[in-house]
Parts: sequence; C-alpha cells; structure tokens
Amino acid sequence: MNLLLLEEADFIAADRVILRDRRLVHMQDVHRAAVGDNLRVGRIGGLMGNAQLQRLEAHEAELQVSFDLPPPAKLPLTLLLALPRPKMLRRVLQTVAAMGVPKVVLVNSYRVEKSFWQTPFLEPEAIREQLILGLEQARDTVLPEIIIEKRFKPFVEDRLPAMTEGTLGLIGHPGDHPACPRGLDTPVTLAIGPEGGWIPYEVDLLSKAGMQPVQLGARILRVETAVTALLARLF
Amino acid sequence: MNLLLLEEADFIAADRVILRDRRLVHMQDVHRAAVGDNLRVGRIGGLMGNAQLQRLEAHEAELQVSFDLPPPAKLPLTLLLALPRPKMLRRVLQTVAAMGVPKVVLVNSYRVEKSFWQTPFLEPEAIREQLILGLEQARDTVLPEIIIEKRFKPFVEDRLPAMTEGTLGLIGHPGDHPACPRGLDTPVTLAIGPEGGWIPYEVDLLSKAGMQPVQLGARILRVETAVTALLARLF
Repeated sequence: MNLLLLEEADFIAADRVILRDRRLVHMQDVHRAAVGDNLRVGRIGGLMGNAQLQRLEAHEAELQVSFDLPPPAKLPLTLLLALPRPKMLRRVLQTVAAMGVPKVVLVNSYRVEKSFWQTPFLEPEAIREQLILGLEQARDTVLPEIIIEKRFKPFVEDRLPAMTEGTLGLIGHPGDHPACPRGLDTPVTLAIGPEGGWIPYEVDLLSKAGMQPVQLGARILRVETAVTALLARLF
Repeated sequence: MNLLLLEEADFIAADRVILRDRRLVHMQDVHRAAVGDNLRVGRIGGLMGNAQLQRLEAHEAELQVSFDLPPPAKLPLTLLLALPRPKMLRRVLQTVAAMGVPKVVLVNSYRVEKSFWQTPFLEPEAIREQLILGLEQARDTVLPEIIIEKRFKPFVEDRLPAMTEGTLGLIGHPGDHPACPRGLDTPVTLAIGPEGGWIPYEVDLLSKAGMQPVQLGARILRVETAVTALLARLF
C-alpha cells in the first residue's frame, strides 16, 4: 500500500477521517505509524495529498488530511479481456488498476470455461476490492470502469464498433502478424484473449469491428503477464 | 502447461519416455489426452518437438518423442533483482523464465527484509520448479541461470563491473530520470529494486559499476509487474 485511499464514509469533517478496517491494521503493522507521522493519502475519485496521524488507538485512528495533487493520467485505452479464471481475474484487476487502464470489458470467448462466470470474484464489491488494491499500489485514486459482457457476438457486433471508433483497434494474438507497435500516443482498443487464444471466428468478428491482430513473439504468456507486456509496449 | 518438458531421467530409449508425476496428471486432467494424441514436448536444455501418446494408464504414460525445433531466443539481458518477498519470488521466477531472461542475480538491498533470505523457495530445487513452470508456459526449454548474492557491496564492487561491461547498464528507479528506452537490440544489464526502491547509497554504487537510472512513470508497480513492463519496453 503506497497510498492510503479514503472513502467518503471515512470523513467526519472536511479535513478529518477515522479509519477502522484493514487500513488501520496496515498503518499499525506495516507502516508502524505513530501520532504525528505523515502519510500519503488519496480520496477515491479525487485528489491525492497528505495526512497527519492525530490519534492512534487499537480499534481506530484519526487523521487530519489535505489534498492538493491530481492523480496520474490514465492510459488512452479500452481493454477488452476474455474473462480469465477466477484467481487470475483478481490479479489482473489489480494490474489494470495499477497500470492506469481506465476501462475494461470482460467478455466471453469460446475458450472461457462456463464456470468462470459463476465466480463470486465478479460481484461488484469483489471487483472493487481488487481495483482498490491496484490503485493503492500504484498511487492512483480513480477506479477503472469494468463492463461485463457475457455474450461475445452481440457485444462485438452491436457495441464494440462504437468503442473502437477513433481508436487504433488491436488484437493481441500469437501468430504471423505484425509486431505490436511501440510508444503510441493515440487512443487504443486492445483485445486480449483467453488461455489458448481467441478462435478464428472470434478474430474474424473482432476484425470486422475494426481491430487487427498483432503479436509479441513466440512465447506464450500468462494473461496477467501479457496484459502488462502489451501495455508497456504500446504506451 | 503449453509444453511438456522432459528430463533426462524420463527417457527409457532415445525416442521413448515414461511419465508418472504431475505431468501425467496434467495430461489426464487438462489435456484429457488419449492414446494416439500428439503433444508438444521439449527436452530440458535441448530441442522441442512432438510426442505421441503410446500407452496411458492411471499411474504412468509412455510417449514416443521426436525433436526438431530449437527453443525461442533468449533476451540479451542480465537481470539484477533485489530479493523479493517469498511469495513474489516464486511468481517472478516463473515470469523471468517465461519472458526469456537468461541470467538473474538475486541480490540483497537495504530494503530487503532479512527473513526473506531464509525462505525454502531459495533452495535450488524450489527455484528450478518455478523456472520449469515458466518454461512450460512460454514454450522454452533452457533454464535461466540464477545467481544468489547475499552481500550487495562486494557483489556490486567486485563482480558487477565485469557483468555490465559491453552492455547498457540500467537501473529501474522511480524519479526524475530519463524514460526507459524502447526496442533495443543491444545487450542490457537491468537492476530492479525492492518494494520501496533502492536507497541512494545503492544507486550510487550501481552507478559506479556502470549503470544509470531510468524510469517508467509515476506509477509504483509490484516487482513482478515492473519486471514484465521493463522487459516489454526494452526489447
């Protein structure tokens, strides 16, 4: 946790917050904070700034806070991601939040196991929890938007064309394709497939929606690694 | 597992192997392989090729194998990594093996907790297990070399200069430094610090050994994500 993220419910006044949950435990156990210490804080969806610890007890802490710093810029990106297996989903959500992806569409694919859609990690609160961990890691305050699309074809045919319009549409896909471009500053829509990759029918439909396949080399990467590698290459 | 990696001990003839361990379980449970099926195989440290399943029983499988394909090229890189916490160490070892890093030096740093050096995950067999998982994921056969340096100063002063000679020496380090370069094809020595970063004294010593700080932006990434992002940016 490199940034203590504050929710609206934490505030007891415009410049005072009370913490009681895992953030209190983290302050005590990891930061070993003492009264008078300064900590980096951010307001979810708002500015970042400084907190001074005013009172620290076993069950709660009170901090005086001020905010002056905007969060870092997001990437100009919409990430279309075939739903990963539940354990990987949690890590990927942290990673996309940490790397500054503003919008993620979790989509079905032929190679996504049906059971993955039943995971409790897709509940809004569970998604938010992982995104918060990513923001705390990277020092950002703005939650990415996560959209869930359980049906591939209607999403790609009816809604994806409007998303890709005005952006460079890329499909991360192993094979004999152009190399993934580097150091872009244009908006991108990037589709990353499941373990085993998109099937040809899916690549066709994505192509009709304005996206083209690019590759990162012969190595097959786990989804989390592929997401990070593609983003680091693109921007 | 995208490649079934074979050890010398698996061979009962030049073109026949018997499998009994987790690889057998994986063939049965994930690949749901049947007699006559073809599987991608690799010989640790050697070529990749094809296996045909000849016999499949509950406790063992027999395969006929042939080898014709060289493994993918490694990156022209030596990675100097402050020892991560044990759980992260395991994932990082998989990631560096998957991404094609040929040589990793795990080094001490002021911000590495002393207890991390006690982890059983640093035993040679435990390291090898994680590297194998990374090679199986990416389809590679050649184990990276892992060097353990428990003392920072003698390593950096006495042995690092010979490693950085003829390479571009870079320190991944947040702050007001040049951006990490992109798309290199020259050999690189890259140092990645612990959570919290290298301390100034360490950056000084690394600089004297021929390395210069570069940054990836304002976001603070977990070690595993930083490794992947820096490698994807550099090569």
